[in-house]
Order: sequence, then C-alpha cells, then structure tokens
Amino acid sequence: MIRDPAELRRLCRRGEWRLTTAGHCPAHQQANLVLLPAAYAAEFAAFCSRNPKPCPVIEITPPGEWEPKLSAPGADLRTDLPGYRVYLRGELAERRPQIGELWRDDLVGFLLGCSHTFEHALAEAGVRVAHVECGTTVPMFITNRRCRDAGRFRGPLVVTMRPIQPAQVALVLELSARYPHAHGSPVHLGDPAAIGIADLQKPDFGDPVPMADGELPVFWACGVTPQAVAREAKPELMITHEPGQMLVTDLPREAAPGG
Amino acid sequence: MIRDPAELRRLCRRGEWRLTTAGHCPAHQQANLVLLPAAYAAEFAAFCSRNPKPCPVIEITPPGEWEPKLSAPGADLRTDLPGYRVYLRGELAERRPQIGELWRDDLVGFLLGCSHTFEHALAEAGVRVAHVECGTTVPMFITNRRCRDAGRFRGPLVVTMRPIQPAQVALVLELSARYPHAHGSPVHLGDPAAIGIADLQKPDFGDPVPMADGELPVFWACGVTPQAVAREAKPELMITHEPGQMLVTDLPREAAPGG
Repeated sequence: MIRDPAELRRLCRRGEWRLTTAGHCPAHQQANLVLLPAAYAAEFAAFCSRNPKPCPVIEITPPGEWEPKLSAPGADLRTDLPGYRVYLRGELAERRPQIGELWRDDLVGFLLGCSHTFEHALAEAGVRVAHVECGTTVPMFITNRRCRDAGRFRGPLVVTMRPIQPAQVALVLELSARYPHAHGSPVHLGDPAAIGIADLQKPDFGDPVPMADGELPVFWACGVTPQAVAREAKPELMITHEPGQMLVTDLPREAAPGG
Repeated sequence: MIRDPAELRRLCRRGEWRLTTAGHCPAHQQANLVLLPAAYAAEFAAFCSRNPKPCPVIEITPPGEWEPKLSAPGADLRTDLPGYRVYLRGELAERRPQIGELWRDDLVGFLLGCSHTFEHALAEAGVRVAHVECGTTVPMFITNRRCRDAGRFRGPLVVTMRPIQPAQVALVLELSARYPHAHGSPVHLGDPAAIGIADLQKPDFGDPVPMADGELPVFWACGVTPQAVAREAKPELMITHEPGQMLVTDLPREAAPGG
C-alpha cells in the first residue's frame, strides 16, 4: 500500500502507476475528475449542486488552471492521475495516460468526492472490501434512476457496488454516512433489478467481484455519473479520470468542506 | 414570526416585506444570493469551492434560469427576496426591491448558506440572539483575513458577529458546527482587533447590537463576503441580496447537501 499522496501522484506523473487507487493513501481523500470547457462550466456546476450524492464538489479550478491549490497544492491535473478518458460530443474517443497535449486555457476542473475515501474506514472497522482484496477496480453500474437536470446536463445515476455481510450492513451505513463529501450513505440496498441493473457480474465500468453466500449488494452514488451524463449532454469536449483511477488529494479523509 | 417559506417569498414578491429574514421560518434554510454573468461563473464557482466557510454552496442555477429548482421549487430569484443590491464593476450602484428589469439570459445564480439558519438552533437552546431580539440586521464586518484566490475573485473575508455569554460559548460552538452548510463553527472569538475590526459599533453592513457586560463577541464567516470581494474582482455586473434579507428556501434546516 502506498500511503503518501504526493508519492502516488509522482508515480503517475512519471508513468509508473496505471492501476486503481483504491486501497491506497488511507488517510486522504480521493477525487473524481471532470474537465470541461468554460462554456459548459456554469451548467455543470449547477448539475453538481443539484446532485450532491453523485457529485460532491471538493474543488473547482478556474479556467486554465491545472493546479488544485486547495486539495493538492503542487499537483498537476494533466499528469497526476493514473489514467484519463477523453469524451468528444459525449462519445468515449480515447484513453490516455496523460493529457498535457489536450490542455486548453478554457478548461475548468471539477474534483468530486470518491467512495474510495470511506472504504478505508470500512476496512479499519473489519469490513471486507471485495475489490480491494481482489486488487481490481470497483464495479460500477448505470442505473435507471435519473439525476436532477441542470441546463444541458441530464442523465442517469451511476453507482458503485460492494457486497456486504448482512450483519455488517448497519455498520457500513453508519460509517459511510460520515463521509457526505465522498457520496455518504448508500442510495440502494439489495435487489439490483429495482434500479435497472440486469447482471451484477457485468458492470458498465470496472471489474466484477465475487459475491459470497448471503452477501447483500450495497450501492453508492458514484462520481463516474458525469461520464454517463455526457452521453446525453454531448459536450464538445470532456476529459475525465479513468474510472477507479483517481486524483489522490492531500485533504484529510475526515475533512468535509467547510466542516 | 412567519413560519412558511412560501408565504415569506410571496410577501416579498408582492412588495410587502422589506425587512431582514432573521428570526423567521425556523425549520428552513436561508440563502445568500450572488448573480453573475456566465463569463464569471466558473471562476466564482472555483472561489466558492476554495472558500467553503463563507461560501457554502446550496444550489447553483444554470444560465438564465431564475427558479431554484432544488432548494425552492416555484420560487423566483428575481422577486422573492426582500431586497437586492446591484454592483457594477465592483461598486454598489443601486438597491432595488426587485430585479426583473435587469434579468439577462446569461445570469448564473449562486445560493450560499446563511447563518440565520443555525440561529434558530441557538434560540431553541436558550441562547439570546441579539439582533433578532432587537429586530435589526445582524452586524457584519470586513476583516483583514484574505479568502483563497480563484481567478479574478480575491478579497477579504466578511464575518457576522453575535455577542455570547461566556457560559454559553461552548454550546454555541457545538450547535453551529452542526451546520457546515450555514457557515458552521465560528472563525474567531474575542478580540475584534485581531481580525482587523476597529469598532464593533460600526459594522460595514447591517446594524450595531448592544453588548451586555461580559459578553464575548463571536464571529462567523458570512455570505456577504462576495460583495466585499467584488470590490477587487470588479465583475461587470453582480446582483446580490441586500445583506440580512435572504432567500428563504424550502430545504429543511438540518439537511446538508449530500447528507
């Protein structure tokens, strides 16, 4: 396990880290990334404010500024994540290890809280986190639940899934609820079909995890939601993190904005 | 005391309410308003994200949309506050009861949490809230503390002040800390000079309140901060609420975004 966010970011910058960040840097917050041209920024900021469960804002960077001065001073949004996705008019056009060549002076960065942040609290409390044990990327699913609209941004909620022993479900709810800046409490428990998920072994992003006998699937709002919303909003350009491969910030895990 | 947010908004819309909203609608959140042209919205959203104590975002409305669909469905940002201020290039140009004639299709609305929200929790716990007892507007002061910069937005922190009995200070801290969406815990206690305030009887916004013997001045970050920051940022146009005269939302007092 890597514990120092600056070290993990340095490895990414050197091209020496291409894996999920889940399970690393237990004392710090991780963040989803959405980069959009300024012409879309007001609408997307509105979208985040109306959908704080999938899109809890940790920091927004002004147009052209690639340093997240609040959450990771000295970091570079162009290089310090393990991987990136480039969406053109809502379609996935490319996966890249860095995005320096695509940078524009009008790009606005949105750093959104991530459930990998509270997973450490689960693990410390003795809860098995399946994808961390497997060394894979958390399974993510596009649901049939709609986000609240904001301008051109409208679309479905994406969720992460973790299998939880029934005896630990209450504990898991209580612990994750302490992290509203990292999606907070679950949005659904149990029957996947009730939120439009046909097959838990076929996630839309990330990798499937084995379900042990009697485990309950528990679903949290996910910061990959903007990538599903882009399919409907079709912004000219949108650059995101590769799902599961987050910006690891210097913010303490417990520190909610303004708290 | 008016208890129903929709009724208070209706009175404003009819031009029948021109006073502070402090002390009213105890079960609901109140909000500061900042309206900016879309060309400034990304930078101001970044400013709010980096300064969550003075600028906790409750809702952002997309360009041209005057209905805060998340926090007060059916309300109208152009008419439903008791009063407005119009800043041109950072200078206060006009105070108005309504702003319908100034509306533009590129205006983005920022609703920011307000300390009037947690004052009800103080009053219910037996804490005297001086300006509510006096029926005046809470005293606000421009401090010598700087906010974190974001693009063109940079400037001083504005605070509200409430005199508190020493025996109640711990209670007041504990209660207000439960409302991070309404500025949370205080930013300073005691000596006003330490944060650049020369005279507690001469606030920069609002009205002075009497200080009883032995009372400690307690200072909270304030959503009027953007109005002080505008003096340095000098946005072409910025429309705000009249200090102390808030949008009263339908959001439950306790409901933090994403919580």
